[in-house]
Amino acid sequence: MKIAILIYDGFTALDAIGPYEVLSCLPGAKVHFVSTEPGPKRAHTNFLSVMTDYALNDISDPEIILVPGGTKGTMVAAEDPRILSWLRKAHETSKWTTSVCTGSLILGAAGILKGLQATTHWYARDFLQKFGAQYLSERVVRQGKIITAAGVSSGIDMALQLAKEVSGPEMAKTIQLIIEYDPKPPFDSGSIAKAEPSIVQLANQAAQEAFK
Amino acid sequence: MKIAILIYDGFTALDAIGPYEVLSCLPGAKVHFVSTEPGPKRAHTNFLSVMTDYALNDISDPEIILVPGGTKGTMVAAEDPRILSWLRKAHETSKWTTSVCTGSLILGAAGILKGLQATTHWYARDFLQKFGAQYLSERVVRQGKIITAAGVSSGIDMALQLAKEVSGPEMAKTIQLIIEYDPKPPFDSGSIAKAEPSIVQLANQAAQEAFK
Repeated sequence: MKIAILIYDGFTALDAIGPYEVLSCLPGAKVHFVSTEPGPKRAHTNFLSVMTDYALNDISDPEIILVPGGTKGTMVAAEDPRILSWLRKAHETSKWTTSVCTGSLILGAAGILKGLQATTHWYARDFLQKFGAQYLSERVVRQGKIITAAGVSSGIDMALQLAKEVSGPEMAKTIQLIIEYDPKPPFDSGSIAKAEPSIVQLANQAAQEAFK
Repeated sequence: MKIAILIYDGFTALDAIGPYEVLSCLPGAKVHFVSTEPGPKRAHTNFLSVMTDYALNDISDPEIILVPGGTKGTMVAAEDPRILSWLRKAHETSKWTTSVCTGSLILGAAGILKGLQATTHWYARDFLQKFGAQYLSERVVRQGKIITAAGVSSGIDMALQLAKEVSGPEMAKTIQLIIEYDPKPPFDSGSIAKAEPSIVQLANQAAQEAFK
């Protein structure tokens, strides 16, 4: 099970690491962190680097592709012809092509979401249409072999659904127990439908800053 | 807000990255990934390296300490005198000393949990007593300034609770919305109290393998 997780400067670490932790438990999984060239890539907060061991062209036929989101850096990645052409090529033969958060904008820029329903971080919901996709306000959206997830933490839910598709419900439930995913958020403020308007406004301001 | 996240070979990436994504949003947060010496550190799956920018001694007075868990590598880290003496010293002046998953075994080995209630990954629950701590089967356990969280994904819940303590509920709710943490696991299999016995057995076998 060859898995490629795209990494680029400015990616959001949890977008990638949530699903990685789930997918790395799949039987026979080999997870490859790939970037335009191997080496350290900085997360959007600038507090952290992840090393990638592989260049894009080292991993040409992944069964699962995962594209994490980010803030400004995602907009740069979504215009990088090396990333877009690798994605288009890898998508031709992938069994699953997935994104978390604004990673769907990179899929969109590669032309992969044209005419499809998809999701993304709530802040970026208007950006998706630019790529011919129809935004759905759902945590995980599946269209054939393409699965897009909403903001940041939603990648964990998406990966567990994918684990079920790939290896069956018994394995997916086992992985859920291994990562002890029995969430108990202290508030019910994790979606714009549930958060108080003042909280939505604060989060919106923070997101605006992050994309500047 | 000086935050130190301990990294060592064999750490579980989501243990560290879940809380990091939350805590890095705190006003004035500076997150430092620290290890015995700066450089790449391998996650327990061997699929991933995280770069640390700081040696332990570069960060001597963090306000928040976070210790992630792992499998075999955690047992090695829990016997590393450089890590234990740094932890003891940093804990003297920290405002918050926290762990995720088997990270609590490292806190325990440093003598920090003696006589206290604490939690850890369900698989490691019997190990905690060795360090004079009393295991509680809860997702997050607070004892004064010490907060321990259960397995892997529980660090996100812990960090949101900590965000509330540090910066108030409005900020914590805003961060929850920024990371769109509105969890919808496809199964209810995230704790040993809820998972089917056959799933507990499978997860137990996988954990045994991982600690070999």
